[in-house]
Amino acid sequence: VGETAHHKRVVVVGAGFGGLNAAKRLSGHGLNILLVDRNNYHLFVPLLYQVATGNLGEEEIAGPLRQIFRTRRDVRFLRANVQQVDLKQRQIVTDAGPIDYDYLVLAPGSVTNYFGNRAIQQQAYDFKALDDAAALRSHVLDMFERATHAANPEQQQALMTFLIVGGGPTGVEFAGALAELVRHTLRRDYAQLPMQQAKIYLVEGLPSLLAPFPDRLRQYAQRRLERLGVEVRLNTLVSAVEGEHVQLKDGTNIRAATLVWAAGVQAPPLIETLDAPKACGGRVSVAPDLSLVDHPEVFVVGDMAYREQDGQPIPQLAQPAIQGGHYVAEVIRRQRERGEQVPPFRYHDPGTMAVIGRFAAVAALPVLSLKLTGIVAWAIWLVVHLYQLVGFRNRIVAMLDWGYDYVRFDPPVRLITGGTAEQTLAISQKE
Amino acid sequence: VGETAHHKRVVVVGAGFGGLNAAKRLSGHGLNILLVDRNNYHLFVPLLYQVATGNLGEEEIAGPLRQIFRTRRDVRFLRANVQQVDLKQRQIVTDAGPIDYDYLVLAPGSVTNYFGNRAIQQQAYDFKALDDAAALRSHVLDMFERATHAANPEQQQALMTFLIVGGGPTGVEFAGALAELVRHTLRRDYAQLPMQQAKIYLVEGLPSLLAPFPDRLRQYAQRRLERLGVEVRLNTLVSAVEGEHVQLKDGTNIRAATLVWAAGVQAPPLIETLDAPKACGGRVSVAPDLSLVDHPEVFVVGDMAYREQDGQPIPQLAQPAIQGGHYVAEVIRRQRERGEQVPPFRYHDPGTMAVIGRFAAVAALPVLSLKLTGIVAWAIWLVVHLYQLVGFRNRIVAMLDWGYDYVRFDPPVRLITGGTAEQTLAISQKE
Repeated sequence: VGETAHHKRVVVVGAGFGGLNAAKRLSGHGLNILLVDRNNYHLFVPLLYQVATGNLGEEEIAGPLRQIFRTRRDVRFLRANVQQVDLKQRQIVTDAGPIDYDYLVLAPGSVTNYFGNRAIQQQAYDFKALDDAAALRSHVLDMFERATHAANPEQQQALMTFLIVGGGPTGVEFAGALAELVRHTLRRDYAQLPMQQAKIYLVEGLPSLLAPFPDRLRQYAQRRLERLGVEVRLNTLVSAVEGEHVQLKDGTNIRAATLVWAAGVQAPPLIETLDAPKACGGRVSVAPDLSLVDHPEVFVVGDMAYREQDGQPIPQLAQPAIQGGHYVAEVIRRQRERGEQVPPFRYHDPGTMAVIGRFAAVAALPVLSLKLTGIVAWAIWLVVHLYQLVGFRNRIVAMLDWGYDYVRFDPPVRLITGGTAEQTLAISQKE
Repeated sequence: VGETAHHKRVVVVGAGFGGLNAAKRLSGHGLNILLVDRNNYHLFVPLLYQVATGNLGEEEIAGPLRQIFRTRRDVRFLRANVQQVDLKQRQIVTDAGPIDYDYLVLAPGSVTNYFGNRAIQQQAYDFKALDDAAALRSHVLDMFERATHAANPEQQQALMTFLIVGGGPTGVEFAGALAELVRHTLRRDYAQLPMQQAKIYLVEGLPSLLAPFPDRLRQYAQRRLERLGVEVRLNTLVSAVEGEHVQLKDGTNIRAATLVWAAGVQAPPLIETLDAPKACGGRVSVAPDLSLVDHPEVFVVGDMAYREQDGQPIPQLAQPAIQGGHYVAEVIRRQRERGEQVPPFRYHDPGTMAVIGRFAAVAALPVLSLKLTGIVAWAIWLVVHLYQLVGFRNRIVAMLDWGYDYVRFDPPVRLITGGTAEQTLAISQKE
């Protein structure tokens, strides 16, 4: 439709941080860009856990892609699942048909790594998709509803016990938000329940939470979580899950009706089937310009690109993906198309942050050599995250929701929706 | 929990307009009130169709019940399905166990009437539940996504054809909102699609739309809908549905991938099994004080209460339910408990309204004998509906969403969520 033969086609797979920013930066330079994603929206994954605790509505962290690219005539969007990449034919195979490319930007993101444990995969909630986060919100509230008419105290205790695996930023942030939800909001909503019995465990295999953060910040985070009532278990792993019975490697048995998994990521099926050299974690080893060594017309950005910098792998975070997306757009436009020189990709770490609760966060900002905790870190977190949300409406509503919650302890979304009933029926009927 | 034997127990079944207002009005008078609903929220059903068109987020039209009743210590909430009423034992049976009552207020609302047609029931969307409205929003957007890569022009036409059955307020309001979504918003989002081919049919068995409204308002509504491109078919019914092929009684065949049913309501299973005299539509015939003739301790309010007034049945709308809820609370508190005289229930019609689109609505206000159309009716509609939403946050966000949409033609929620893919796969693969 309106495409002319001399416009080269760039196909961008994935509309996460990497793909979205690649498509934006490619636009306006005489290329014909096709953005492909299974969802019709860009998802702000770092705030998914706030959908799970009812602090934000689903639509607040999602930006409809057709709206985002409405004014850019050279970017088209296709909602499809990409099943395969045929590097030789320069073609991707999707459930909406095959698509040829001149340049390919692969930014599929990662999926949750359950380390091959099917029982955990079937039972655990994770933080990757919007539907799953909304389902977790419904599930958490559902557990308290069921606890009000539990058959016996043991069942009630299990319904009010939450086990979070993974002490990285996602696990820490969710544990903090869940603890505040239980302590401040649900304690009032469920006045008839013995809420002091509600238990939140945070399990981490390493000797500390938030491993990549400076030591002082890690200790602060743990202290704040414990003050909120979260039971932090370090140096241990989940060894077995059978229904609501979870066994830890250190011998502890915990009966929890809710298992949340934030303990690692792995390559999605599309990358697993890609015929290219892989590094650890199934990531694709890329050249200094983020292209495949044997296929300079194919680029990988974000979680699935493996590249070391100063002896360390570039981390799997939003920032490297955004910078990678911008970078490959430059390489395609300036180097590949116009023969200009573009220096190798270099990730500039603007800092990492994690919020633990109301007025409590940690922020490590290498640019200014700052290591912040408490309300200052929290204020920076708030401004940065509001700014990053897509769309004026989402920023205003998120600001309103957070403000209202901070003042009134009333997260706005406390609805049990979707088919949680069937999913959890097994647990409540086991007694 | 804290209940004393001399406090009589009032069980209220259903937290819609009738039940919610009964429970509120019963509170604070030495009674022990239990509100039972399958959902943990009160749903503002008249605006469900706006969730289906993306104009409002799901949480904006739902108020969490535990939050609503937090400060009322004498009202408890139980999230459960009520399966049966045992009038003799004065007990309701729920999936959370049996519950005894001294007084029972039945306010279960109604379910959609498909007139026994299973094919329609399986395929059609309706406006009764929050999940279904969100699923319809995802479905509508999904149809346009699929239309961008349809196998042939006939399939594309079917994907862009929407058949709405029922010309009452719900059908009219949804048809108008859908037409505006397609004309203003999706036309820009799907620039590659021939959007002038998108078709919206509104089918009604009676000779006019909005049957209970005054004649001038009915004609205005039809004219405005037609100006928006809606094809109104009066005096006809759906005779058969087979996949996406819909046949009308007047002989027309329409190929539509979307069927929306707003053509009538009937009694929910709970009322069907209730051992009490029924009137037309499976509604329960009630005494002048809305109680059962043989069981003065049991009341029915809302859609399921059948009572004639001035020779006409009281309509199945939000207002009679709200007034009925307030009324039975008075009867229980003052007449049954204190022996005071309470006059029979009398419904006071404050007026009916329907919005057709931007700045276009009809309002019949009998109190002032006003029959309004256009921007004045629309402004009244807006104020009344904003006022009726539960909660400060929801009013502000709805105002923001409507304002933004009116100015920018950008409804805030354009996300395809949930499992629409499987549901509609059959249609797209039939070609």
